[in-house]
Amino acid sequence: MFAARYIPGEHKLKIDDIPKPTAGPREVLLKIRAAGICHSDLHVLHGEVSYDHPFTMGHEACGEIMEEGSEVKGQFKKNTLYAVHGPNPCGDCDYCRAGKDNLCDSPTRQFIGLGTDGAYAEYLKVPARNIVEVPAGISAEVAAVATDAVLTPYHAMKTLGEVQTNSSVLVIGLGGLGMNGVQIGLALGAKVVASDLREESLALAKQMGVQEAYNSKDLDTKIKNRKFDVVVDFVGAEATFKTAQNYVKNGGTIVLVGLGAMTVPVSTIAFASFQLRVQGSFWGTHQEMKEIFELIAQKKINPQVETGKMNEVNHWLEELAEGKIKSRMALLP
Amino acid sequence: MFAARYIPGEHKLKIDDIPKPTAGPREVLLKIRAAGICHSDLHVLHGEVSYDHPFTMGHEACGEIMEEGSEVKGQFKKNTLYAVHGPNPCGDCDYCRAGKDNLCDSPTRQFIGLGTDGAYAEYLKVPARNIVEVPAGISAEVAAVATDAVLTPYHAMKTLGEVQTNSSVLVIGLGGLGMNGVQIGLALGAKVVASDLREESLALAKQMGVQEAYNSKDLDTKIKNRKFDVVVDFVGAEATFKTAQNYVKNGGTIVLVGLGAMTVPVSTIAFASFQLRVQGSFWGTHQEMKEIFELIAQKKINPQVETGKMNEVNHWLEELAEGKIKSRMALLP
Amino acid sequence: MFAARYIPGEHKLKIDDIPKPTAGPREVLLKIRAAGICHSDLHVLHGEVSYDHPFTMGHEACGEIMEEGSEVKGQFKKNTLYAVHGPNPCGDCDYCRAGKDNLCDSPTRQFIGLGTDGAYAEYLKVPARNIVEVPAGISAEVAAVATDAVLTPYHAMKTLGEVQTNSSVLVIGLGGLGMNGVQIGLALGAKVVASDLREESLALAKQMGVQEAYNSKDLDTKIKNRKFDVVVDFVGAEATFKTAQNYVKNGGTIVLVGLGAMTVPVSTIAFASFQLRVQGSFWGTHQEMKEIFELIAQKKINPQVETGKMNEVNHWLEELAEGKIKSRMALLP
Amino acid sequence: MFAARYIPGEHKLKIDDIPKPTAGPREVLLKIRAAGICHSDLHVLHGEVSYDHPFTMGHEACGEIMEEGSEVKGQFKKNTLYAVHGPNPCGDCDYCRAGKDNLCDSPTRQFIGLGTDGAYAEYLKVPARNIVEVPAGISAEVAAVATDAVLTPYHAMKTLGEVQTNSSVLVIGLGGLGMNGVQIGLALGAKVVASDLREESLALAKQMGVQEAYNSKDLDTKIKNRKFDVVVDFVGAEATFKTAQNYVKNGGTIVLVGLGAMTVPVSTIAFASFQLRVQGSFWGTHQEMKEIFELIAQKKINPQVETGKMNEVNHWLEELAEGKIKSRMALLP
Repeated sequence: MFAARYIPGEHKLKIDDIPKPTAGPREVLLKIRAAGICHSDLHVLHGEVSYDHPFTMGHEACGEIMEEGSEVKGQFKKNTLYAVHGPNPCGDCDYCRAGKDNLCDSPTRQFIGLGTDGAYAEYLKVPARNIVEVPAGISAEVAAVATDAVLTPYHAMKTLGEVQTNSSVLVIGLGGLGMNGVQIGLALGAKVVASDLREESLALAKQMGVQEAYNSKDLDTKIKNRKFDVVVDFVGAEATFKTAQNYVKNGGTIVLVGLGAMTVPVSTIAFASFQLRVQGSFWGTHQEMKEIFELIAQKKINPQVETGKMNEVNHWLEELAEGKIKSRMALLP
Repeated sequence: MFAARYIPGEHKLKIDDIPKPTAGPREVLLKIRAAGICHSDLHVLHGEVSYDHPFTMGHEACGEIMEEGSEVKGQFKKNTLYAVHGPNPCGDCDYCRAGKDNLCDSPTRQFIGLGTDGAYAEYLKVPARNIVEVPAGISAEVAAVATDAVLTPYHAMKTLGEVQTNSSVLVIGLGGLGMNGVQIGLALGAKVVASDLREESLALAKQMGVQEAYNSKDLDTKIKNRKFDVVVDFVGAEATFKTAQNYVKNGGTIVLVGLGAMTVPVSTIAFASFQLRVQGSFWGTHQEMKEIFELIAQKKINPQVETGKMNEVNHWLEELAEGKIKSRMALLP
Repeated sequence: MFAARYIPGEHKLKIDDIPKPTAGPREVLLKIRAAGICHSDLHVLHGEVSYDHPFTMGHEACGEIMEEGSEVKGQFKKNTLYAVHGPNPCGDCDYCRAGKDNLCDSPTRQFIGLGTDGAYAEYLKVPARNIVEVPAGISAEVAAVATDAVLTPYHAMKTLGEVQTNSSVLVIGLGGLGMNGVQIGLALGAKVVASDLREESLALAKQMGVQEAYNSKDLDTKIKNRKFDVVVDFVGAEATFKTAQNYVKNGGTIVLVGLGAMTVPVSTIAFASFQLRVQGSFWGTHQEMKEIFELIAQKKINPQVETGKMNEVNHWLEELAEGKIKSRMALLP
Repeated sequence: MFAARYIPGEHKLKIDDIPKPTAGPREVLLKIRAAGICHSDLHVLHGEVSYDHPFTMGHEACGEIMEEGSEVKGQFKKNTLYAVHGPNPCGDCDYCRAGKDNLCDSPTRQFIGLGTDGAYAEYLKVPARNIVEVPAGISAEVAAVATDAVLTPYHAMKTLGEVQTNSSVLVIGLGGLGMNGVQIGLALGAKVVASDLREESLALAKQMGVQEAYNSKDLDTKIKNRKFDVVVDFVGAEATFKTAQNYVKNGGTIVLVGLGAMTVPVSTIAFASFQLRVQGSFWGTHQEMKEIFELIAQKKINPQVETGKMNEVNHWLEELAEGKIKSRMALLP
């Protein structure tokens, strides 16, 4: 079958023909219907994160079940989309048992498509426990990108930032995740201010329903003297983190999602005097994945997605690297 | 009456004779029995924090009630110690109403002894709502220093760090606050590891009941491969914060109390990958002050305190500045 | 001025002419613009709850400020509606300091209009700390009834029931509070099922936006095999409480608001086996009152209210006793 | 091998000789070292709870590993005690994934020894994920009874009652679970009052370290005017539940553990006015089981246990039914 594989040391995926896998006793085999591409893929291909073995890339997967393992027979539906929970948690470690399966620390755990075979292929086998049914009415491409580009900001904002009805939230950075973050904030009932340097992103955020969207350069006039319960920094650069520290309320939380700089500086005196918090966030849990699909099905979140052909994956990864993809992109077989 | 007063621009307190104050309708007048000295005093005298008006310094106060205001008559006991809640919250702002009175943001609020008259005096008038009865058996000097040197680590660890039974906690820095922090951790049922560069502090921590106390230089061998639910950084220097990031568990919390450096660097990739949190902490609440006095009365916390004479306050502040005070110091009338 | 006063032992309010009050130092004097009537008034008039002294009744108040006390001068706006927080908390007791001011247990605290003078009058003086500005665009009658008929279900559902985005909620009983409860559930992002014995109430609930509203007699067929995170019992009768126990999820919460029966029976084996919870709920906090006004201003909650004349208060209380008031009623001067 | 088996309709266990089981791929085979007996066994034998198939009884198990399944080879230690998590959760259902595995609702889940084969036997096979290593120094009999008689009150008090440092707790009923409950309260740092009708239980509670232990008949004088954050009702009779309602603080929690009566009456007006909560509690989680073993190893909890011979299991169950077992009993091979 077709598979686009990471080869240690190579900067492009190898378009390959490999044997179709077979589901183990507690696995299912999915026929891939859509696979999202992500900056994390680039971090690997550019060598910032490295693996010592080849694997099929692609960690945002949606497909239909072709085969059920012997111990999970009859548990799944035909002609129905299932999305893959990329963190691929074990279910048995302390984190999994405590409801924090995004942090699974099983020594044998590997992320789908980042260390073990993933979604840039015709078929994908995954543990049956790590898939979630996609409600009717959601397309494969939306479901695929939602597993990361919606799940990550949802976990960051709802679970870690504790955003809820009437929270005031400042979202910094309106790329793929940030744009979904704005919608998530609104879906959670928050009062959201969106900011970015790109005017077209501000315009899009307004189309998504946010009432206040300001150019980052104008923040000091537009939201002067205002403070926010939660500031979500989807950029993670020194300047955006400084903005976050300036606009977070006493006792409030900065959720740090972006990786724009290697380090960002915490002001000790500001943190102590105003009791600030910086909270890092990693992907999301299986249960949260169910929740985001409910919100998408209810039309409370409407993730933007572009599509391309899966066999052109290297082309689209280049486009992504060059900043040419505005929202998020899913590859179709 | 005697009062040691801050004069804008001066580096020493002015030993003065001022009129004895009178309690307003909702105030009480305390005869000071002990007043703790604190590094915050030095920050003010050294000009790092500045005020434009003179006031009597001293924000860790314990005394007896000499006078009750007209609206609070009969609410307090004679011959009984009361400690002052230094944050001096208003009771009416959003923070006060939400149970976070350490963060009171009333525009007229001023900390006792830091902006408005404090404890380095014969008498102190304070809002009746901002004092707490000290249980019998606790000395005035212990009560005075506890209002900051126990309250601050208690708030940091119990409320913000969520330290509880069976939590694993690494305490970095065994000065006055850190040493109380170790005892607080044990009182909360946590498994505590203490660390410091000074061997005598490690020895004292062991006397306080901690089973593991290691020299900071030896941590990488002594606690190799171990991770902690909570790391409390009572130093706040770049090196200690790096230690904190190394030893906090995935999904764990670094509570930042010390102000050793202006800024400390957060590694964006570590924070995102391991879902770390840095939590700043400010002083403590009125209700927490009641709680620490219960723990001290139950002998679960035994704050170390040295005493000096209040009219020698400038001498003792110099000793403090030179690092000659090992635990915490209270001045007696 | 006009005042309708409770007289111990009397079953009707005495329409009286009493001196206009004057604001004390920390009080304000409101000119009443609307005053809600409530079943609690009937409990008092019917002798189920009794007081040993007369007072002006009315605990759901909205008015404009005519006079500010000497210590609160300049803190409030002219030509602006303010609503009164009926629990009238002291600000200083343990509950107030812990953010639970609805439970204020100050020995001198009395509810506005239930023990101390209330809103069925031309003017009302109240502690300045216990009023909340009503956002522009909300009418006096809506603001008045919201202080109880929205605040009570909001506290019950959001704070105690922990209803949030994607929670599944069954609302039993669509009287004034229950109908607002349905809207609150939707505003909090929950999936709400409404139930009542009256078809017209079900129809109204659907107008309010709920997708599922079933006659209580049909529940066992309509929601067979479904379970809810939270069941809110706005009736509190034996039958409704049994329904609540049947339809709450394992580990879920029944919030008990109604007082339909003196006692309701908890099945010990069901509670132990399925880890159920019954949570009583009392009115709401000052901070929650701010939150509900934000939701009403955003049109996320649209409280139904009928109006009558204040000097006909005894007539309207009779109508209320006879079940002739469908939603909630506010009296206008 | 020896096995004492439940036979549907029989009131005694059948002492039988059955084939030694073999561990499946993800199971382990334990040689039983101790098995606790429990009132739940009696409920089954007396027909209050019934099963349609025979099984070996015994849900409090501790043993050593004799065999590891093919997929879990090398994960466990020799010559080491392991205790069994009786709820036997699946790891995959919504409750398991949310950290509430005591509530596992997998359709195929059965409690160890209550529906599927349990501990009254020479060997027991269990899912490898549902055992916990017992720290050195804890005996097999203590470990066995702790899996229920410590775990159940620990879950009830710490997790559901939110008992923590300085909580005030009233424990009603000092049987096996209640006596451990008293110790758990103390280990969590709470201020505990114990009560029972039996003077010898009060005396034992004092030996366990509680400072206040009162005869239930004297409560109204001994703790007059006192209220508790949490009341734990280990009896669950109408009288004890009434006591619980009388002595719980406004806004407090009654944790209902005992099953003394079929139903207990909730006063609607008390629950609404004082915002009370009744919380049912079921057994405990895998993670909590680890925590209780840590507390036992630290000598913070010292569970009382008597021992008997396993082949006399029917005799000891009779003694239990007759109330002759004071603490908890473990059967040894």
